[in-house]
Amino acid sequence: MSAQSSDARGAGRLTVIGTGPGAPGQMTPDAQAAVEASELFFGYGPYLDRLALKPHQQRISSDNREELARASHALEQACAGHRVCMVSGGDPGVFAMAAAVCEAIDRDPQAFGHVELEILPGVTAMLAVAARAGAPLGHDFCAISLSDNLKPWPLIVRRLQLAAEAGLVIALYNPISRARPWQLGEAFTTLRAVLPATVPVIFGRAAGRPDEAIRVLPLSEADPALADMATCVIIGSAETRIIARPGQADLVYTPRYATGAQGSDQEKSAP
Amino acid sequence: MSAQSSDARGAGRLTVIGTGPGAPGQMTPDAQAAVEASELFFGYGPYLDRLALKPHQQRISSDNREELARASHALEQACAGHRVCMVSGGDPGVFAMAAAVCEAIDRDPQAFGHVELEILPGVTAMLAVAARAGAPLGHDFCAISLSDNLKPWPLIVRRLQLAAEAGLVIALYNPISRARPWQLGEAFTTLRAVLPATVPVIFGRAAGRPDEAIRVLPLSEADPALADMATCVIIGSAETRIIARPGQADLVYTPRYATGAQGSDQEKSAP
Repeated sequence: MSAQSSDARGAGRLTVIGTGPGAPGQMTPDAQAAVEASELFFGYGPYLDRLALKPHQQRISSDNREELARASHALEQACAGHRVCMVSGGDPGVFAMAAAVCEAIDRDPQAFGHVELEILPGVTAMLAVAARAGAPLGHDFCAISLSDNLKPWPLIVRRLQLAAEAGLVIALYNPISRARPWQLGEAFTTLRAVLPATVPVIFGRAAGRPDEAIRVLPLSEADPALADMATCVIIGSAETRIIARPGQADLVYTPRYATGAQGSDQEKSAP
Repeated sequence: MSAQSSDARGAGRLTVIGTGPGAPGQMTPDAQAAVEASELFFGYGPYLDRLALKPHQQRISSDNREELARASHALEQACAGHRVCMVSGGDPGVFAMAAAVCEAIDRDPQAFGHVELEILPGVTAMLAVAARAGAPLGHDFCAISLSDNLKPWPLIVRRLQLAAEAGLVIALYNPISRARPWQLGEAFTTLRAVLPATVPVIFGRAAGRPDEAIRVLPLSEADPALADMATCVIIGSAETRIIARPGQADLVYTPRYATGAQGSDQEKSAP
């Protein structure tokens, strides 16, 4: 993926990074090095704001509903010989810009297939929220975006039902916004029909940042008003447990073992 | 979670970190700072080997089938006043030590409930493999461990079937080992019954490291012999696509849009 570009100017490339969940100490050194080595930056404004850019570095911010155009624009600039950095929050491959960049290449492989492209992983939001809550993702889990801009709502409902039936812990991205205010409540309603009322639901915002807010409620009391665009919601499975600790926040975790369909709660010994 | 411990010695604490996928540039600055601030290190030997420890820092390595004992031992040392670091690969909350630490606390909250505990997120293996392949996790996905040491194999099969039916991309952790040699082949057999034969399967090892190996095969040709303990296997969904690029590796990605049950392949416009 980092083979030399055959672009006429020779110097152009596109690096796609994630800033991590927001705290500077959770952005990888590789991502930081990519920022220092780039001259032109594309991304959603609040993610670009996380970077300490120098005067020669130019930023072009755009709305998150213009992802494909942003990707095409960045690829065009790489073709023109610039060292371009596409900036997502979290990890760029998780409901972020890496897929949009690939889509743009796929739509015009003649124009963009030769671009020198590198994608660098980052700490995605659900991992940061989980770490602050305990270990809710400690067993099998899934990540589902509640955004029905690009997929039908009935498909999302079906995925939630099947995921819950499978016993997967569910991390919800893009849970709610002004343009999509009702989907999270509907998701909770869907899950209440298949999960125990006591299953813990974590609302995690700004994990690891000074304005961090982590709240845990049973599914029966989960309220969509507790979430906003920057919240990651993690719904436990029937196996997820809460540990109360004197003088400290509860720990929420999903154990490594599972009893399965047989209903046995005897932990198998490791061979 | 970082409230002052009520431990008599006052100085003890346990920090649980992930090294990331192995390349030093993908370990977060926060995790590095935790290493520098700790004196006693617990973990699987190869993960401890990734750290540049100083002479005063002591490491205690153990086998990955002794996770609960390792967690209890680390907590005991924190209770005794030491600054302890528990070291996982990748992210500590994803099929790693954070859940085992929570289990150990849950088994003996009197002894361990007061320990000052901090869990720091990291870059988990599937994100690193995905970044090197393109954007296969660009749409809804799940992470399932094929280890049936602590959960029944029929439960794993059921989860694979439901995940594939839901259209989730599936990242498999702990795919194969000397002690568990047949499960990955059975997983492929299970998935071949529900997914198209052409679905891309990524075998990713040592992502971002000098000995990196990323291979992509259609599900019909997916061979468990291509995986080992350090491999993350990512099975695409029916929507996952491959872009051939002249002179560069193929890109494998799952687009942000999905057609859903209606069978329409018209992308909805963003509102």
